[in-house]
Amino acid sequence: MTESALRIVPLGGLGEIGKNMMVLDSGEDIVVIDAGVMFPGEEIPGVDLIIPDISYLLENQQRVRGILITHGHEDHIGALPYILRELHVPVYAPGLAHGLISVKLHEHKSLRQAKIHRIQPGQEIKLGRIRAHFFRVCHSIPDAMGIALDTPLGMVVHTGDFKFDHTPVDGKSSDITKLASLGAQGVFLLMSDSTYAELEGYTPSEQVVGETLDRVIANASGRVIVATFASLISRVQQVINASLKCDRHVCVVGRSMVDTVNMALKMGYLQAPEGLLVRADQLRRLPLNQVSIVTTGAQGEPTSALVRMANGDHQQINILPGDTVVVSATAIPGNERTVSKTIDNLFRRGAKVLYDKLDRVHVHGHASREELKIMVKLTNPKFFVPVHGQYRHLALHADLARSMGVSKENAFLLEDGDILELTEESGKIVGRALSGPTYVDGLDAWDMDSMVLRDRRTLARDGFIVVILAVDKRAGRIIGKPEVISSGFVDPEESQDLLDKTREWLAKELDHGDEGKQEWEFLQAKVKNSLSRYLYDVTHRRPMILPVAVEV
Amino acid sequence: MTESALRIVPLGGLGEIGKNMMVLDSGEDIVVIDAGVMFPGEEIPGVDLIIPDISYLLENQQRVRGILITHGHEDHIGALPYILRELHVPVYAPGLAHGLISVKLHEHKSLRQAKIHRIQPGQEIKLGRIRAHFFRVCHSIPDAMGIALDTPLGMVVHTGDFKFDHTPVDGKSSDITKLASLGAQGVFLLMSDSTYAELEGYTPSEQVVGETLDRVIANASGRVIVATFASLISRVQQVINASLKCDRHVCVVGRSMVDTVNMALKMGYLQAPEGLLVRADQLRRLPLNQVSIVTTGAQGEPTSALVRMANGDHQQINILPGDTVVVSATAIPGNERTVSKTIDNLFRRGAKVLYDKLDRVHVHGHASREELKIMVKLTNPKFFVPVHGQYRHLALHADLARSMGVSKENAFLLEDGDILELTEESGKIVGRALSGPTYVDGLDAWDMDSMVLRDRRTLARDGFIVVILAVDKRAGRIIGKPEVISSGFVDPEESQDLLDKTREWLAKELDHGDEGKQEWEFLQAKVKNSLSRYLYDVTHRRPMILPVAVEV
Repeated sequence: MTESALRIVPLGGLGEIGKNMMVLDSGEDIVVIDAGVMFPGEEIPGVDLIIPDISYLLENQQRVRGILITHGHEDHIGALPYILRELHVPVYAPGLAHGLISVKLHEHKSLRQAKIHRIQPGQEIKLGRIRAHFFRVCHSIPDAMGIALDTPLGMVVHTGDFKFDHTPVDGKSSDITKLASLGAQGVFLLMSDSTYAELEGYTPSEQVVGETLDRVIANASGRVIVATFASLISRVQQVINASLKCDRHVCVVGRSMVDTVNMALKMGYLQAPEGLLVRADQLRRLPLNQVSIVTTGAQGEPTSALVRMANGDHQQINILPGDTVVVSATAIPGNERTVSKTIDNLFRRGAKVLYDKLDRVHVHGHASREELKIMVKLTNPKFFVPVHGQYRHLALHADLARSMGVSKENAFLLEDGDILELTEESGKIVGRALSGPTYVDGLDAWDMDSMVLRDRRTLARDGFIVVILAVDKRAGRIIGKPEVISSGFVDPEESQDLLDKTREWLAKELDHGDEGKQEWEFLQAKVKNSLSRYLYDVTHRRPMILPVAVEV
Repeated sequence: MTESALRIVPLGGLGEIGKNMMVLDSGEDIVVIDAGVMFPGEEIPGVDLIIPDISYLLENQQRVRGILITHGHEDHIGALPYILRELHVPVYAPGLAHGLISVKLHEHKSLRQAKIHRIQPGQEIKLGRIRAHFFRVCHSIPDAMGIALDTPLGMVVHTGDFKFDHTPVDGKSSDITKLASLGAQGVFLLMSDSTYAELEGYTPSEQVVGETLDRVIANASGRVIVATFASLISRVQQVINASLKCDRHVCVVGRSMVDTVNMALKMGYLQAPEGLLVRADQLRRLPLNQVSIVTTGAQGEPTSALVRMANGDHQQINILPGDTVVVSATAIPGNERTVSKTIDNLFRRGAKVLYDKLDRVHVHGHASREELKIMVKLTNPKFFVPVHGQYRHLALHADLARSMGVSKENAFLLEDGDILELTEESGKIVGRALSGPTYVDGLDAWDMDSMVLRDRRTLARDGFIVVILAVDKRAGRIIGKPEVISSGFVDPEESQDLLDKTREWLAKELDHGDEGKQEWEFLQAKVKNSLSRYLYDVTHRRPMILPVAVEV
């Protein structure tokens, strides 16, 4: 590595580039920003979550000074329990993220020794020769931060997930002044959130959602049920505020929502006057028009409270005609189907349902194009690396920065795993690091490789058939008729006949070429090939075929 | 069934209600509207397509007078090859749909005897005592029709898929005059397209897309590649028109697009001057700025031309920096992920990509709320049944009709399979018909039941393990150690160790309770239960467990 160079390495995979983890390597010191997970979609069945590959960090463990967390969302903190097991470095996180991480690590008992430091905006953290300053940004969770890193090569600004909301619910705006002063001093590199680089204009303030909720809750004749993300504390605050104005009690339903609200109340991120909040078992004695309910399930998560209510199998809340349900979220890509199914089922139960297509019930947590321009303008960086987004978002964001004066060759489009090396004058991609995705399924000890996933996809498509052959291995001969067993292949009621025919056919087929001793490998291949053709002819399907020998 | 009653039965399932098939039953005569398919999403692996269950029609076959087709989209005609095999009735279809159905039936050779009649707008068709008139509507395929059915109980209007475009590309607007005259005579029942009942205002005219394409094609310095639906002939016409204006040749790429364009040219739905269209092998000798390409893949279909180009494995077209790619479509729900992956890959190849979030490159083919109001106002129906949409769309559409004077109890929200019985004065749901979904997988002869799908989902999640036991059935004893074989369960490299351990553990476990003869059913259950617990403890996964006895 060139002396006085800086390496930038996004790690992760399958998701948004640089979202789950960014690595800064000055040669002397390595600083990690965020350690998040991705949740796999329907196309990767049987995987619980996806974490970045941290080989690069493990290989350079003695130089890793710490992990800086920008905010408490799962895609920024969720991988910590897995990563800290191998990488023993301190973690620095803003208040709420610190609380959420502590709960998470407590659940993974082996990690009690982890060092998690709670940081304040403005606080300086020394990481070898790199000094980090956190500064406030607005996002869809309290206590979100951007990070300014003073490196030997110059100032690096990482925005974290951000937007510029000048009227946020908690009154804490993005720290424009800090950004301006960084820009005035000179910013070497800006890494900026690209999630909504497709969207013209400005992201509306949380205030507009507050106005909608005020109106909806004031005008509803029955209960109002608001579903949102458990971490979107400001939305919960808005429901509390609106409910207060029209003498409604607020009930929080859904385990993760209850946990987060309790933590937020205790830590002061959420304010509710004494007696306003009620438990679900206290609802029975309240008139319907004195009740607001805040709950989870805005993404149609199958076991969430809202989905259970929509399906009529929630233990405590039954959706009634006259209820107003507000789905205060936008479907995350991949969840569209489950969200729309949930909304349909709420309509089926006679509820009035408000969702993003019908009313201003949600604003997202990321900057739109005009805000991205403000960020570039304020920091006026020499080098620009768009992060957090699909490739198209990064490409549009890079074009945006170039249109504002960042020189064409100083804006870089990276993929996860790319190693970008910056010197004072220029930058180029000098190599690739292992970046992931690493699949976590079941017990953490079990790592997945793509072979298992490939098998699962085959099984999902056409099922399997196991052929059991009694083999006299010494003579290299099959004895008797093969047994077959299958699943996911054909209708169980009709399949017995097909399986019987298959046995007969296979017995005959194997008898044919029986000219003396045959190797098991040869027999195996023969069974696979001929059976595959036979079954395709009969059913037009291609099940997985597994021959197994039972020695006799 | 009450005399002088009319039954309305939507058939289908899993998709939009009443989209794939609507049944009208006057007691004497049955008329079917449309016979379409659904394509399953990622959550139903291994299923090719989904068709309605036509048991209701088969039970009353002698009264079924015909199938009326509104237009040539797959979700309205795709089930014909399967249905006509069992239901021998004439089909009536507008010109382009007639052409597409003929091609489809030709591919399914057994159906040469099917009677498919080409109809013209205004033409009267006698179906027993019911008389049908087709009338023009605008939609995203030429020759789309609504149907007015003169029944003993009164006039029934089915809109088909429609919008009111007053400046369509082919100049053929929705027949407002016919609708007004039907309304003046009195409409008993309106069944109207609800697909975009969520959208305020008017759906923009195709004209605005024409303007965008004119501008993009005129200003592009290199090739322009426009991807859209093969059936969206008007979009192809717009590319031809825009290319003509700036001396570009047009090349059609992608099998389904080439087929449809050729048919449309031959039938007169598409106009292109001599010499304008070129084959892909002629592109090489043309300058890049004299080439427009129209192709398939706007939905990210894995084997489509655009996806191949985006992945760099299309035989004839290589995406180059300087190319402009227009994705002229909106992702159909469920396709969001594949569409966005395709756009990302086009960006990766250096193309300039325009898609719905960035420019007005597509308008959809369905009416928005203001147009739905015009339809209700013109026809002024006594009864109203919203069709074509998810449940929420129907609910919103019913509310819209009620707000315009349809009485509350005369607007009906049906589910697929509901049998609505209307008399002169009122209506109610009197029962349920089998409605589907029926899954088609591989050879048509093979029907699927949900057991197979359930198995496939289990296999997709955690794979399987087959336990082979050598059993002396007479003595009811297991001989030797069990064999195990698995797939999709654990990493193949690590699995041998686990499988060996499992064999050992199972051998011991089965040895334990061995107190004399045991029934195979008992042994099977014992293996399943104890092995399930064991494997969950070790791996936190729940593979399918299949014990099989090999008699010795």
